[in-house]
Amino acid sequence: MAEDAWQRWFSQRVRWAQRYTPPGAWMPALPPGCVRLSAGYPAPETVPVAELAEAARRLTEREGDQPFHYLGSARAEELPDILRDRMRTRGMPVAKDEILVTAGACQALDLAAQVLLDPEAVVAVEAPTYMEALEVFRNYTPHIVAYPVDHDGLQTDLLAADLERRRRQGLPLPRLVYTIASYQNPTGACLSLLRRRMLLELAEAYDFLILEDDAYGELGFGDPVPALKSLDTAGRVVYVGSLSKVVAPGLRIGWLAGARPFIEAAGWFKKDLGHPFAEAVAAEYLATVDLAGRVRFLQRVYRQRAAWMEMALRRHLPEGVTWIRPQGGYFVWIHTPGVNTAHLLADALRAGVAYVPGRYFYQESGSVHEDAASLPGDDWLRLSFSHLSRDELELGVSRLGALLSKMR
Amino acid sequence: MAEDAWQRWFSQRVRWAQRYTPPGAWMPALPPGCVRLSAGYPAPETVPVAELAEAARRLTEREGDQPFHYLGSARAEELPDILRDRMRTRGMPVAKDEILVTAGACQALDLAAQVLLDPEAVVAVEAPTYMEALEVFRNYTPHIVAYPVDHDGLQTDLLAADLERRRRQGLPLPRLVYTIASYQNPTGACLSLLRRRMLLELAEAYDFLILEDDAYGELGFGDPVPALKSLDTAGRVVYVGSLSKVVAPGLRIGWLAGARPFIEAAGWFKKDLGHPFAEAVAAEYLATVDLAGRVRFLQRVYRQRAAWMEMALRRHLPEGVTWIRPQGGYFVWIHTPGVNTAHLLADALRAGVAYVPGRYFYQESGSVHEDAASLPGDDWLRLSFSHLSRDELELGVSRLGALLSKMR
Repeated sequence: MAEDAWQRWFSQRVRWAQRYTPPGAWMPALPPGCVRLSAGYPAPETVPVAELAEAARRLTEREGDQPFHYLGSARAEELPDILRDRMRTRGMPVAKDEILVTAGACQALDLAAQVLLDPEAVVAVEAPTYMEALEVFRNYTPHIVAYPVDHDGLQTDLLAADLERRRRQGLPLPRLVYTIASYQNPTGACLSLLRRRMLLELAEAYDFLILEDDAYGELGFGDPVPALKSLDTAGRVVYVGSLSKVVAPGLRIGWLAGARPFIEAAGWFKKDLGHPFAEAVAAEYLATVDLAGRVRFLQRVYRQRAAWMEMALRRHLPEGVTWIRPQGGYFVWIHTPGVNTAHLLADALRAGVAYVPGRYFYQESGSVHEDAASLPGDDWLRLSFSHLSRDELELGVSRLGALLSKMR
Repeated sequence: MAEDAWQRWFSQRVRWAQRYTPPGAWMPALPPGCVRLSAGYPAPETVPVAELAEAARRLTEREGDQPFHYLGSARAEELPDILRDRMRTRGMPVAKDEILVTAGACQALDLAAQVLLDPEAVVAVEAPTYMEALEVFRNYTPHIVAYPVDHDGLQTDLLAADLERRRRQGLPLPRLVYTIASYQNPTGACLSLLRRRMLLELAEAYDFLILEDDAYGELGFGDPVPALKSLDTAGRVVYVGSLSKVVAPGLRIGWLAGARPFIEAAGWFKKDLGHPFAEAVAAEYLATVDLAGRVRFLQRVYRQRAAWMEMALRRHLPEGVTWIRPQGGYFVWIHTPGVNTAHLLADALRAGVAYVPGRYFYQESGSVHEDAASLPGDDWLRLSFSHLSRDELELGVSRLGALLSKMR
């Protein structure tokens, strides 16, 4: 069969996906020596390599072949309880049948979309938002609406006004609002307490569910903020957790927490797509680590890196280029008025610095025709301060600053 | 929100799924002391525990934090090439962009279904077939048709006759035929070479794709048989491989191999649902093991266990109870005329032996109303000989034999 004959075999979902550039287009291939300000990797010194290797050793010594089967590792079976304990300390008690371990937050988002979205469903997202979440939602519905974020997170007043307009005009209301309320990717913004309460009230008033992606929730630089889930008395929040930022992304462990019927349905679609070995290693590690102490350590590390990043930004970025001061997480979101960051990227890579162009965080991006157009977010870019040394951050930002200065 | 209020939030796919019992209903909870002839686990002595633990140690020593990130483990990146090498030695050369590593065969089946199936698509399966594959297909289409298997595998003459009838009557033809051609689950049957060629010819004549699940393909007790993929000159075979039976299921590593456009589309839906750490450990292990020698060792182990199983069956099963002699794999498929194995299971568990009732391997099973009915496969059951000792096999079969003798 010739390659182009394959088109007729594809499902409707593939044809939808084909209207967009393939996933991962936002992650450029890097030339040698390029400073990778693009990647949301954890700081290398925070990855507990020796402890995880030791956990794997202890586990296999104690449990033998059990962690290598489909089921049967006693430690792996403790993982949901360990995650529930952590949620409880953060004001989110959930029952045993209200949690499902997933292959990272990405599978959690995918399962939530499978369970909650039909092709006619409307999903509301933040603008900008996590590009992989956009990629997931696009597989399930073409109806994605977006509401802007400022330094206090999702602008709930704009959301409220648009919901009211939709209701008045008889337009379909969102079934689901996806939010990274705490230390958002890419803005680093944190939804204020007032807006958190307002969002929960809107969910009741306009009858939608909230999908709270809390991957960065423990990585704040200031006082802890309550997760939406911890404020949710109506049971409208579906919570997505992740060990990627708190332990290590390569273990690919996340989880869903929500009402029992939802978790049961998500489990039907998850089937045996878990990872017994990785789950057992993670549980063995978590069972023996001081997690609260580790979280405080991570907060110090990333607060320090954010400070280094801001010093570099102040030193190297030209007048008129601004940013949202990150309140936590991995990223800083930079405004470059008059400069198209998608068009600039090739030059930046040649100059030895990689970033993610702002357009990829907007739902309008990703069309296969996008090269022709100027898109929302084109005068923004995302830098990651999470994984580079102080010198690397300084070098990368100085290269970016020099390039931006030339453009003005 | 009350639990029963959740129903209105569910997608069409959940409503389809709700017509069936939840996945895993076929895996009963076992009372203590029960002999687990139900589970398709590998033989414990074949799980390379020390070697995998050592691979994890070497890997972290050499690569540091790399295997714990999203990307970046040099070893993990070699995994597709290692799998391609193995396919090449089995007569299936595939290019770099014709393979995709997945979270076990189950994710591979799910991705194939996502890419190839719309709700109106017809899928043909074997009767009986792997119950988890049925669960996957049901999430994508209600149109599943099944064709019987005998000791030579799928009865391609019956398939051919029905395809011709469908064409004559203007009924929709299958887009996809799912087959476990080699050492089938649950029958242990192996599709004869003649039927393999006939199936490939039917695919051309009636224009369908073949989804070949080769999880057991290297675990034959006699001369090796060529995979369908190795005979496929028309490019109609999508191949599913798995390390679950050859290394260990807990690593959850499988793969898809097929035409480049198909693999690209599957990659869009897979996104980052890989497991960097598990993939890196598996690759490190595979890069240093004598895999051909290991496969021969596995063949000896399971041939021996199948022989023990057959001795026990001959000794303990009453007259009239027969079985298909397994040609490879993990399972033996037992015919119990006049005995409903679904109804017998509770008694069997009380008597200290677990099996999987035959109905779960048929597409008619799983309806939430099934308790009322007698279903296809109800006079069959599946026993696993893969993971128990000779004494355990003997004990389990003797308990089953005693129970079946009382029923006659």
